[in-house]
Amino acid sequence: MSDWFHNGAPVTSVAIENRGFQYGDGLFETIAIRGGEPRLWGHHLERLAEGCRRLRLERPDAGSLRLQLDGALQASTVESLYCTAKIIVSGGVTQRGYGRARRTPAHTLIGVFPAVPPAGSAYRDGVGTIRCRTALATGSALAGVKTLNRIEQVLARSECLEADAFEGLTFDADARLICGTMSNVFLVDGKTIRTPSLSRCGVAGVMRRHLMDVLRDTPAAVVECDLGERDLERAGEVFLTNSQFGVLPVSRCDERTWPVGPVTRDVMSLMAGNGIAECRL
Amino acid sequence: MSDWFHNGAPVTSVAIENRGFQYGDGLFETIAIRGGEPRLWGHHLERLAEGCRRLRLERPDAGSLRLQLDGALQASTVESLYCTAKIIVSGGVTQRGYGRARRTPAHTLIGVFPAVPPAGSAYRDGVGTIRCRTALATGSALAGVKTLNRIEQVLARSECLEADAFEGLTFDADARLICGTMSNVFLVDGKTIRTPSLSRCGVAGVMRRHLMDVLRDTPAAVVECDLGERDLERAGEVFLTNSQFGVLPVSRCDERTWPVGPVTRDVMSLMAGNGIAECRL
Repeated sequence: MSDWFHNGAPVTSVAIENRGFQYGDGLFETIAIRGGEPRLWGHHLERLAEGCRRLRLERPDAGSLRLQLDGALQASTVESLYCTAKIIVSGGVTQRGYGRARRTPAHTLIGVFPAVPPAGSAYRDGVGTIRCRTALATGSALAGVKTLNRIEQVLARSECLEADAFEGLTFDADARLICGTMSNVFLVDGKTIRTPSLSRCGVAGVMRRHLMDVLRDTPAAVVECDLGERDLERAGEVFLTNSQFGVLPVSRCDERTWPVGPVTRDVMSLMAGNGIAECRL
Repeated sequence: MSDWFHNGAPVTSVAIENRGFQYGDGLFETIAIRGGEPRLWGHHLERLAEGCRRLRLERPDAGSLRLQLDGALQASTVESLYCTAKIIVSGGVTQRGYGRARRTPAHTLIGVFPAVPPAGSAYRDGVGTIRCRTALATGSALAGVKTLNRIEQVLARSECLEADAFEGLTFDADARLICGTMSNVFLVDGKTIRTPSLSRCGVAGVMRRHLMDVLRDTPAAVVECDLGERDLERAGEVFLTNSQFGVLPVSRCDERTWPVGPVTRDVMSLMAGNGIAECRL
């Protein structure tokens, strides 16, 4: 069940010539709606703007986008106090051919979906993960951007489905740890929290950014750096972030297991106090 | 002007939930229709099958696909003796989420477009190219496959539009020459013809394959290898291949110019004798 809207009107389809369909030419945001309000809206807007700049897409006006989102939440048949909204901005409709002229009007869609939160046990006991075999290409011009080019995540996520794992950790072609298929990953060593650099590939999540902002001026400030398989093996604690679930401890990756540790619990408590209610244990 | 068909019926739109739109989850073939027949049909079918295998997509039945193509050509308002057909196979419609179960039915669309051949002067005198600044990510799980994840080509092609160049040559993140935005590239040194390896990124074109097949048992057999900026600079001749235009000499890349050389002319003559009529000078 979901409802999609374009300029306030309900829609169920897009033109075949839409460049989002032809070339994956576009980007999206997946937004947690909590108490009827879009959580981390400012972060979503900033990432969207940066993505439009990188893809040379016409950037939707922030005010108009918010009006469209609010309208979609009101008009939707989905319970709109606690749900998930998805904004897709694609390169619009053009003639056949990769090239897109600078002034091509972008095409914006807003979808509203029921939110399906993880069970409380996931927050208390952690979630199981696997190492995905699908490698992420490196040196991407699109690194960090949540584009509509997501086949790598489709393949990696399909590995998770088959392994019945909550999440899969993905590595780049040079065996660097990058992120989860739908989350960002953090490794804890003693009191140090590290997260993979996303300068070569991966998606820079808004919850990752929020967590780094919250921890910035504390002794637990997050270090962004290159990390590999051995860093994962040696980590004392591992956790994930994502716009919908907030923060979740990782209890397992393939054969390696971790307890839910004190740093992860502290981070969750801090995030609960900073607007991410799911993290309240 | 174009006509799209799904299972024999004309269509103008796809469901918003189509995974091709949501994630670029799919692939495509662009086929030259000459004398009403799909040129290099066997090569297109093989690449499609290999792409479906790599993307874990349900593979369309070859016989049914040909019937659908023939039906689309007949039903289309486009002049169907000499035109371009596009087959899109996407991951179909599923609920939100990257994962796609193995048995998800794929969704096939066939589009028919007027063909716009390059001017005769392009074949005689060559075409102008630029070096694209957009780098291709390397180590891709999708290397060689013509997927719907084409934002890199969109950005590189937009550079060509702005420079008013016929084509742009793209390099990977490690500065290796890979291909054109819509073509494959060949460098000639003396009598040796080399073309970039496509094991890390790029699209393996059907005309590239046909040319390599045609030259396989001749002294001019094509060598597939890693090539860089300096190989391009030092090349005595440069030419491009693409399913629609066949073979085209390159007369310029940024400031570097080349004459249309004897090896390129021999290759074009050989290709003209092997079904690629456009190469007849």
